[in-house]
Amino acid sequence: MTYCVGMMLDRGLVFMSDTRTNAGLDNISTFGKMKTWEAEGDRVITLLCAGNLATTQAVVSELDERAKAHRDRNPSLFEMPSMYQMARLVADTLRDVIQRNSDTGQRADSVFNATLILGGQIAGGPPRLFLIYPEGNFIEAGSDTPFFQIGEIKYGRPILVRAYDPALSFEEAMKLLLVSFDSTVKANLTVGAPFDFHLYTVDSLVRGQIGRIEQDDPYFQTISQGWGDALKQALDSLPAFGAELPQPTP
Amino acid sequence: MTYCVGMMLDRGLVFMSDTRTNAGLDNISTFGKMKTWEAEGDRVITLLCAGNLATTQAVVSELDERAKAHRDRNPSLFEMPSMYQMARLVADTLRDVIQRNSDTGQRADSVFNATLILGGQIAGGPPRLFLIYPEGNFIEAGSDTPFFQIGEIKYGRPILVRAYDPALSFEEAMKLLLVSFDSTVKANLTVGAPFDFHLYTVDSLVRGQIGRIEQDDPYFQTISQGWGDALKQALDSLPAFGAELPQPTP
Repeated sequence: MTYCVGMMLDRGLVFMSDTRTNAGLDNISTFGKMKTWEAEGDRVITLLCAGNLATTQAVVSELDERAKAHRDRNPSLFEMPSMYQMARLVADTLRDVIQRNSDTGQRADSVFNATLILGGQIAGGPPRLFLIYPEGNFIEAGSDTPFFQIGEIKYGRPILVRAYDPALSFEEAMKLLLVSFDSTVKANLTVGAPFDFHLYTVDSLVRGQIGRIEQDDPYFQTISQGWGDALKQALDSLPAFGAELPQPTP
Repeated sequence: MTYCVGMMLDRGLVFMSDTRTNAGLDNISTFGKMKTWEAEGDRVITLLCAGNLATTQAVVSELDERAKAHRDRNPSLFEMPSMYQMARLVADTLRDVIQRNSDTGQRADSVFNATLILGGQIAGGPPRLFLIYPEGNFIEAGSDTPFFQIGEIKYGRPILVRAYDPALSFEEAMKLLLVSFDSTVKANLTVGAPFDFHLYTVDSLVRGQIGRIEQDDPYFQTISQGWGDALKQALDSLPAFGAELPQPTP
């Protein structure tokens, strides 16, 4: 399993991914699931991956190879004129990889499916965020649905739904995401630290702060432990069942 | 889908269930999923059901019929000498019903599976709580795992894990459960109010408070709206990413 979130804020895009992959519960490893490409002043692209690791690595490798030799090969993600075209390129690559593995060779017990979050900005356009399905189609985030989750989305969703605000600062968004990731990690063994993140500032067209938060990171520990206490206090602040309800102020 | 929780507290057992059933998203109805049997001074039994509605209704009806004519028919849940025997009876009934539907007649697209939570107390023994699987086996709650969820368990789990305490009062437990149910309802259309509950007091051997909370119940509305604000405050109380961390007090 996996847990990744891509989020649109007024001040930019925030990405976070866990790094645990598993082939059964008795076989877990750490792999990065976030990849960022940059052409300074022209474009910054970040991809988050959930699903079959061979599939997502193949997608990233294909995009990467073409990007490195982008004068020779087409289509390259450095040549796409818009984020929409970029999403189509990535989606087509994903569908091709899945099809290639599905049509030929050994049959596997599991399907080769994967789901991706693609976000970034190209000079001349706004930042955009897409959720790409294994079928090769995709949807775009907007003001109604300003963030996407992939993988084990359920445990960490309620806090995102309640506390997301487009005006969040990067520092507040990181806190929110770490609470969401902590809730997920506490409930699902197949999601685990360290967590990779990228904070992209709107219109900067350079990579923002990119980093990795380890399980024993002091800030993450503070959040993880503090959140339990904060939740209990939040619960305490509400009236108990059967108590006199506060009257609405007129 | 469904969401039900059975919980052991020092002062008794707490049960809550939603009432939404659906055969597709375009066909939803309201059905109670909680059933309580009582023989005052001797035993109180509550059953929560998730899964195929025909299956769970058949299980309840069979148990109910035998219970009503329990002098004539065996085995009846009013004659079981212990909660363990009770769990075996219910589990056997569940397995029989599933098997009967699976072996004969039309094939359905969906399986006939169901999962049950059984809790209660019989004179001479302590309150006990069981989770019964469609295969007809079951597990019992203990101090390590003092509550069971069935149905759509994920959205509402983080708050239970964080805030459960065996010393909770019934009033606090109801608040906790309504927060958990609210988080689930907000994320999954196939879980919905009204919510049925039963608060059984340890060693009372009579039905406790039984009731139903409607969507527009003023208390539920207070919790639902208050929880969003309380969560934001909880989040605000934690240090933002990159901030100076509070030093642990020596």
